[in-house]
Amino acid sequence: MADTDTNRVFLLAERPTGRPDEDTFELAERPVPEPGPGEVLVRTRYMSVDPYMRGRMRAADSYADSWDVGDPLQAGVVGEVVESKGAGFEPGDTVTGDLQWADYATAPGTALTEVDPDRAPLSTYLGVLGMPGNTAYFGVQDVTQPQAGETFVVTGAAGAVGSVAGQIAKLNGARVVGFAGSDEKVAFIEEVGFDVGINYKTTDDYGAALDDAAPGGVDAYFDNVGGEITDAVFPRLNVDARVGVCGQIALYNATAVPTGPRKLTTLIQSRATVEGFLVSDFSERFDQSVAQLGEWVGSGEIQYRETVTEGLANAPEAFIGLFDGENIGKQLVKVSDYEG
Amino acid sequence: MADTDTNRVFLLAERPTGRPDEDTFELAERPVPEPGPGEVLVRTRYMSVDPYMRGRMRAADSYADSWDVGDPLQAGVVGEVVESKGAGFEPGDTVTGDLQWADYATAPGTALTEVDPDRAPLSTYLGVLGMPGNTAYFGVQDVTQPQAGETFVVTGAAGAVGSVAGQIAKLNGARVVGFAGSDEKVAFIEEVGFDVGINYKTTDDYGAALDDAAPGGVDAYFDNVGGEITDAVFPRLNVDARVGVCGQIALYNATAVPTGPRKLTTLIQSRATVEGFLVSDFSERFDQSVAQLGEWVGSGEIQYRETVTEGLANAPEAFIGLFDGENIGKQLVKVSDYEG
Repeated sequence: MADTDTNRVFLLAERPTGRPDEDTFELAERPVPEPGPGEVLVRTRYMSVDPYMRGRMRAADSYADSWDVGDPLQAGVVGEVVESKGAGFEPGDTVTGDLQWADYATAPGTALTEVDPDRAPLSTYLGVLGMPGNTAYFGVQDVTQPQAGETFVVTGAAGAVGSVAGQIAKLNGARVVGFAGSDEKVAFIEEVGFDVGINYKTTDDYGAALDDAAPGGVDAYFDNVGGEITDAVFPRLNVDARVGVCGQIALYNATAVPTGPRKLTTLIQSRATVEGFLVSDFSERFDQSVAQLGEWVGSGEIQYRETVTEGLANAPEAFIGLFDGENIGKQLVKVSDYEG
Repeated sequence: MADTDTNRVFLLAERPTGRPDEDTFELAERPVPEPGPGEVLVRTRYMSVDPYMRGRMRAADSYADSWDVGDPLQAGVVGEVVESKGAGFEPGDTVTGDLQWADYATAPGTALTEVDPDRAPLSTYLGVLGMPGNTAYFGVQDVTQPQAGETFVVTGAAGAVGSVAGQIAKLNGARVVGFAGSDEKVAFIEEVGFDVGINYKTTDDYGAALDDAAPGGVDAYFDNVGGEITDAVFPRLNVDARVGVCGQIALYNATAVPTGPRKLTTLIQSRATVEGFLVSDFSERFDQSVAQLGEWVGSGEIQYRETVTEGLANAPEAFIGLFDGENIGKQLVKVSDYEG
């Protein structure tokens, strides 16, 4: 049973214009929900805030369904089973799944995955062993495929996806260049093995910075950010280069259609391939990726960082901070204290 | 022997700013060149003018080498061997190769391919059985791969490449939509089997036109033009769509960096693949493509059209006309009269 009658749930209060702010969110108090048959009640330990959620705040569906105003906000959650109604779980089990920005939520047992709190810290199931780690894994190994001796460039390099992507590319034997938004972030990515980190906030000329960092051109480009850095990368793509479009966070808060230089002509010269991808398309292979990521994390070959905001009430601040680049590594919200 | 002492050769007189004009070209009179050992002297019958030549007029190399001011302009030519110095050809042989905007040119025998003037009209070796036909073939069969039941869209649809590409896609069983620049061109492509032709010069809203012509979205997009039509196609790409970037003629004469809406975000939703390609990368398979194209042309399954400008002196006009869309099908210049 829940140890309270009251459940706090964030709702979409209004669709943001441009950058989300406090008016975007409403913290409602509701009764703790009752699980139906086949359902589980889960108490949230950690929840994830992710850039793609900005797309769900628009009226039109992006690749994820649009949220309606008044809807509870959804999020990747890791938490503890409080009650299970024939859903294949026991109270005390630790699970992960797509739940809510809330203290408690119900879900069908089939929508949850059990995780082992003794194998890795709970938070990692939302980070390096969760969606961001899987995104990095498939974006590198399947989409951009950096090889030994090639040059790999990643934007959002100190983030949950980018920092892992760069380390996997490095394990493949590539030269790895990352763009990140502070000197502290650059120090972090260079510490975990990137060959060159570029602070894009203090760099005027991205093209010149790339010419220095990747003098042989770019063979594989993992793009989380888009915009002007991407404008500088495209003309520097080598023949048969691969571009994986994972995210375009620089554009998500735009209030008008963002414009920039037309880049398709450069692709004729490079015969490069540009591919958008979603981690969910690789879900049948998550067993493989999570096992490999777990092994690399266990051996120290992949290091990860987390930025943890304390308290459900501060989740909007954590989410908005993503667009200011305030996080290093995975941005999480710690909702309650259980640590497995 | 040549039947004259004088050879007319077009030189690059100056690099054009924006649209090329008569000042771009100089018609020089020079002695007919002497073939060296292993070389052939060829009299030009037809020469090809192609949009990609605009790139060679810039100071920087594109995928093709830049021409220097004062250089003879090069072109695909089909012509007659006049003299061979141990080059493996006989006078009277018909050959094709990359020669010059000229009455006569020499080339190593190894750079020329013999063609059979009895098998197909000479001009087709620069069109449907030459570089444009091969570009269409590999751009459809290898790059964009339209399948039965899918929707294929092509720009520059009445041109040498686009008109053949659309017919190959149709042979694959796809629904085929083409953008072309006049009612006459639209009539031509619909006559050769396109499901829908759109006159982009008389259409205000390309998105609405696509919604009508391709209500199920776009699975394969063969882009010869770029710019605003492409802007309308990208948000309409279906999941796992393929885009082949063959040319971007709408942008080649730009005097400033062309800008437009940023489109990479749409690729995340569609997980589409965008690939630049060059026909030269497929050269090892030209035997296969030319045999297949020849069969389709012979059976009438592929129809082609040519726009022939008479006289070497009018080659600049023919070239400039490409950017005004004056040609239907392959734009050629007939330099001398021999017809095989």
